[in-house]
Amino acid sequence: MPRYEDAEWRDSMRIRFDYTNMLADAVGKNRGTTEDELDQMEFRLSAGLDVLRRRRGPKDLAWMDLPYQQETVEEVLAYAREVDGVFDDILVLGIGGSALGVTALKTALLPLGSDYLSPERRRRPRLFVLDNVDPDWVMPTLQMLDPERTLCIVITKSGNTVETMAQFLIARAWLREKLGDAAACHLVAITDPARGALREIAEREGYRTFAIPPGVGGRFSVLSPVGLVPAALVGIDIRELLAGAAYADQLCSVRALRRNPAAMNAALQHLAYPRGQRISVMMPYSQHLRDIADWFRQLWAESLGKQMSTLGKRVNLGPTPVLALGTTDQHSQIQLYMEGPPDKIINFVAVERFAEEGPIPAADPGEEEIAYLGGHTLAELINVEREATAIALTKAGRPNCTHIFPEVNAFTVGQFLYMLEMQTAIAALFFAVDAYDQPGVEAGKNAAYALLGRPGYEEQAVEIRSAEAARPRKIV
Amino acid sequence: MPRYEDAEWRDSMRIRFDYTNMLADAVGKNRGTTEDELDQMEFRLSAGLDVLRRRRGPKDLAWMDLPYQQETVEEVLAYAREVDGVFDDILVLGIGGSALGVTALKTALLPLGSDYLSPERRRRPRLFVLDNVDPDWVMPTLQMLDPERTLCIVITKSGNTVETMAQFLIARAWLREKLGDAAACHLVAITDPARGALREIAEREGYRTFAIPPGVGGRFSVLSPVGLVPAALVGIDIRELLAGAAYADQLCSVRALRRNPAAMNAALQHLAYPRGQRISVMMPYSQHLRDIADWFRQLWAESLGKQMSTLGKRVNLGPTPVLALGTTDQHSQIQLYMEGPPDKIINFVAVERFAEEGPIPAADPGEEEIAYLGGHTLAELINVEREATAIALTKAGRPNCTHIFPEVNAFTVGQFLYMLEMQTAIAALFFAVDAYDQPGVEAGKNAAYALLGRPGYEEQAVEIRSAEAARPRKIV
Repeated sequence: MPRYEDAEWRDSMRIRFDYTNMLADAVGKNRGTTEDELDQMEFRLSAGLDVLRRRRGPKDLAWMDLPYQQETVEEVLAYAREVDGVFDDILVLGIGGSALGVTALKTALLPLGSDYLSPERRRRPRLFVLDNVDPDWVMPTLQMLDPERTLCIVITKSGNTVETMAQFLIARAWLREKLGDAAACHLVAITDPARGALREIAEREGYRTFAIPPGVGGRFSVLSPVGLVPAALVGIDIRELLAGAAYADQLCSVRALRRNPAAMNAALQHLAYPRGQRISVMMPYSQHLRDIADWFRQLWAESLGKQMSTLGKRVNLGPTPVLALGTTDQHSQIQLYMEGPPDKIINFVAVERFAEEGPIPAADPGEEEIAYLGGHTLAELINVEREATAIALTKAGRPNCTHIFPEVNAFTVGQFLYMLEMQTAIAALFFAVDAYDQPGVEAGKNAAYALLGRPGYEEQAVEIRSAEAARPRKIV
Repeated sequence: MPRYEDAEWRDSMRIRFDYTNMLADAVGKNRGTTEDELDQMEFRLSAGLDVLRRRRGPKDLAWMDLPYQQETVEEVLAYAREVDGVFDDILVLGIGGSALGVTALKTALLPLGSDYLSPERRRRPRLFVLDNVDPDWVMPTLQMLDPERTLCIVITKSGNTVETMAQFLIARAWLREKLGDAAACHLVAITDPARGALREIAEREGYRTFAIPPGVGGRFSVLSPVGLVPAALVGIDIRELLAGAAYADQLCSVRALRRNPAAMNAALQHLAYPRGQRISVMMPYSQHLRDIADWFRQLWAESLGKQMSTLGKRVNLGPTPVLALGTTDQHSQIQLYMEGPPDKIINFVAVERFAEEGPIPAADPGEEEIAYLGGHTLAELINVEREATAIALTKAGRPNCTHIFPEVNAFTVGQFLYMLEMQTAIAALFFAVDAYDQPGVEAGKNAAYALLGRPGYEEQAVEIRSAEAARPRKIV
């Protein structure tokens, strides 16, 4: 029996959310939230959960059911078995929601730095996520890899993302040059089940394909094949990952605010916004969890950063997510967080048990200044530093809260990802914005199409050129 | 003759600063700066440059003279020659200002991903910068390396940084276990010339040492041995780097605001702050320049984020630096930057000529939807996307500016680093804060010492424990 089927084990892996230092009691009345304010959110939470329950399902909020896609999991695992040992390197071509989740899973769940190990010690393919079109990164990466031993996974929900399709054309030519028609066996497409350029090409050329369910937007897709396929190929336990997500689904459906971690944080962030606390820092004290905070940046920014409310009012709102890393950023950002404007909330992420202890040896005789370190462990040190930082921030009237991982494993990571998705969905209901659109990116996309000479954008190209020519550049 | 001794070449490598889209003309009167406002800054700039000129020198602002330390350069290069071929791996132990600069130089100036290449293709040691105390990162990193072929460079200005000294104790024991007394030959100390635990230990045990000049603070130390030693060991041209910094020193000493790029950006950021534009995003469209933006986060946040002004007034000010990466973060943050609250300035960093072009092959017949990509290059694509994003942001009334690198090389990188240091120094004078202290980090440090049981902190430990016990935790 896998451990995640044991209810006791699952409860021992519950991520707890400590919001003590978000309250007015801790940081002062004009900086923190009162219990009364929280009480007033109870009703809105209940209404919000009703909305989510109603919209949940394949035709609308399909991401909510991703933890339960048994068939997809079988399909993904079968493919992983099929290609086991065939490839030395997995190269993901994708950007935004098609890359951040994969990177988050890789960093969280593979041994850190293990891609530097020899194949014998690694015993799995390396995983590279190429989420930019910088030629000085793309070209050397291909030159480094052997097409015969590389699998390219092309991920784009629409099937038309300009960066990803440009990379695809380059990678396909690179594979064909060495492999000819066999290139098709080195390409996997993860995209819409029916539409888009990538779907068409993949079907014509016979690539292996996986479908992103239609109702699942890019930033909510990490638990779909977008995250599952690359994860399974490098040996991450995707069943345990989804079991963790299902566990979070339970926790975050509770109607009592004080027992629902996702709703509680959504409420706290929402209540902080009108107080001018508009910057939301996520600061894991764990190298493994760093890229989950980066994944969350997209989720939070694109879902909540909106011009129009769902009531049709122009609001231009949205908290700004910021990624920081403990203890590293204590030596970079904490000065500002302590003494700068009181415009931030710090969301710490703590790990109770690390895989390693990292015992610190005693200093030599005569090394009195650092003798106090001996006998401690790095695990203790990193947690003491987090605790000390939280204490100092609280004393300075800077609100902060802490997500506490019992340990980092596929179950807790799946749990956290789903919890943050729920937090975002609930926060969007509180803020009254649509969590699932991104109208603000269209203008830039269209301008890029115009400048690239895509058919249909000729007029806009002329318009841009003349507007730019009319405004003299100011350059130092 | 090295190319940087040619004045014409140097001028061809000048980084330009385009601030067109920061002006009221481009983004509207309540969002942008007017020429009048800039005129009013001329006098303050002149006064500010006088202050810097007066304070410049070994006893105060020693960082300003780092481009000219001929002797140090000789010493560093002699050491690099001495150990050439001896080590496969360089492991830097440091945090904050002792790590961010090294990482910025590594990412900017070594081929991306080249640490994955075989030693024969790489022809230099790998470089790892271990800037955290997470045991799940530190321990596997050591396990991966061979002590006989590894050089550990321990960097801490004070010589007492808790994270770095904890790592030092672990790394020293790891070296000693395999090498015995020869461990000392695998340790380099970069620290204060006279004080601190690391200096004492290094001298007693006979490590190779390099001095951080006393007047140089951590976040202004990248052009001291802190950055130069690791850079030289992996083959970065540190003479060219410093020549670039010296060139920036000239550019940024000009008294006319409109001809001084550092002063112009400092003025623009200062003028934007009272308009509520308090988030300063640096967004390079270059994978190589990503970690310079991360280095800048510390420089900007710690230098300007202050509770007290230099006039003794409580101000609690400081813009919040945010790192974004183009085009990657177009798919993560641009929705918020376009439609969210108008609280940001976007500082793009552009590269005119990449080392690679990245030609995009033509699509196959029948692939009409992506046919427009064929014949373009990735270099074009990334620049078109940046241009399109700047156009869209400007149209939406979001101020933005662009630093333009002719290309990325040691000269332009040195130039940019020094320019940003000057920008920070000048901005601090405009904001009337001390750029060189960090009083806000003391409280957290002391709390950590107390929790670790360091002698002398017993009372504070008792105080913390009782304060924490008195406040019941609120946990979901």
